Amino acid sequence: MTNREITTLKWAPPIFQGQVRDLGVRWALEEAGLSYRERFVTDAERHSPEYRLRQPFGQIPAYREDDVELFESGAIVQFIAERHGLLPANPPAHERARAWMFAALNSVDPPIIELGAIDHFAGSLPWEIERRPAVVTSILERLELVAAQLEKHDYLAGEFSAADILMITVLRALRHTDLVSRNPVMRDYRDRCEARPAFQRALAAQLAAFARHAPDKAA
Amino acid sequence: MTNREITTLKWAPPIFQGQVRDLGVRWALEEAGLSYRERFVTDAERHSPEYRLRQPFGQIPAYREDDVELFESGAIVQFIAERHGLLPANPPAHERARAWMFAALNSVDPPIIELGAIDHFAGSLPWEIERRPAVVTSILERLELVAAQLEKHDYLAGEFSAADILMITVLRALRHTDLVSRNPVMRDYRDRCEARPAFQRALAAQLAAFARHAPDKAA
Repeated sequence: MTNREITTLKWAPPIFQGQVRDLGVRWALEEAGLSYRERFVTDAERHSPEYRLRQPFGQIPAYREDDVELFESGAIVQFIAERHGLLPANPPAHERARAWMFAALNSVDPPIIELGAIDHFAGSLPWEIERRPAVVTSILERLELVAAQLEKHDYLAGEFSAADILMITVLRALRHTDLVSRNPVMRDYRDRCEARPAFQRALAAQLAAFARHAPDKAA
Repeated sequence: MTNREITTLKWAPPIFQGQVRDLGVRWALEEAGLSYRERFVTDAERHSPEYRLRQPFGQIPAYREDDVELFESGAIVQFIAERHGLLPANPPAHERARAWMFAALNSVDPPIIELGAIDHFAGSLPWEIERRPAVVTSILERLELVAAQLEKHDYLAGEFSAADILMITVLRALRHTDLVSRNPVMRDYRDRCEARPAFQRALAAQLAAFARHAPDKAA
C-alpha cells in the first residue's frame, strides 16, 4: 500500500485536461518510479473549510506522504525531487536547478496565467483585445530567454531535472496557441521532455481520471 | 571578508524603492545575522550577455555564495533559509513553510504583478480601466485566504520563517494601494513582520544604496 496521495480535481473542462497542475506531481512520481493513490475533490469540495485546512487557496493539487501534508505544485515537485534524485547531486548545479524551478513559476508563469485569463475566462471583451498583444510579446520574450539557456544543453540544469517538469507543465497552458512552436529551440525542448515515458504515463493517468468522472458523475 | 554577494539594481525609480526584490534576500541575511557584499548593475548591464549567464532573465537579484551562483529571489531566500535556520526544524512544518514560499510567489504574486503592470507601466488606457476591478477582486480574495491562515498564528508557518519574508516582499508591491490595510488581519501581519529589526535593516540598506546612486550617477 502506497503512502503517497495526490488530491486533484474530479473533473475539469476539456481545454484544461492535460494541463491541470497535478500533472507535474504525477510526472515527478513517475520519473522516480513511485506509486501513488489518487483522491478527487469536486469544485464544491475544494472550496470547503475542510479542504482549505489542507490547501489554503482551494486549489489543486494537494499532496500527502506519511506525516507531510503539502500544497503548491512547485513545493510538492521539489519535495519529491529532493528525496528521489530528480535534481543534480552536485551542490552548485542542485541550487541552480532549484532556481529554475522558481523561475518557471515566478518569471515565466505570470504572463501565461494572464493570457489564460484573457483566452479562457471571458469573451472577447474590449480590454482583452487591447491587452492581449502585449501579454503575448511578454511571453515570447521570456521564451526566448529560456531558449538561450537551452542552446548548449538539452535541459535547464544540463541533465533532466525537476526544473524541466515545472517549466513544461507551465508551458502546457500555452497549448491552445503556437507560441512555443514558433521558437524551434523551445518546440524541440518541449517535445523532448514530453516524449519521456514518465511524462506520457502521467498525462495518461490524468486524462484517464477525468474520463472516468464524466460530467454526469462529477456532481 | 564575507563570501556572500547580492547583485541588484544600481538605481530604481522612487515608486519601486523599498520593494525591489533584493529586499527579501537582504532581509533573510539580516535575520540570520550574516554579512554580505553588494554589487550593482545598471539597466544596460542587466540586459548584457554577461549578466544573463548569471541571471537568464536579466532580472535582479542575483546571488553568489562560494561556488553557488543563484537567481530568483524565492530560490535565494530558500537557500539562505535552509542553511541558516529560517524554516521550522520539524519536517512536516518545514515542508509546509516551503509550500507557503511557493504560494507567495505562484498563488499570491501573479495578480499583484498584473496590477503593477496596470498601475505603473502605462497610462490610463481603456483596457486598464476596464480590467483593474477584476484584478483587485482577485487580490482581495487571495488576501482573505491568507488571512484565514493567520487568525490562529502570528506567522504563516506558526513561527516566523522565510515564508513570511517572501509573502511580505510580495505584498510590498501593493504599497501604492490600501488593499492590505483594508483587511485588519493582513494589516497587522504586515506591520508585525515589518517591525522586525532585520526587516528594518534590510529596508534601510536598500534605500541607502539607491540614495548613493542618485540618477546623475546611475547611468
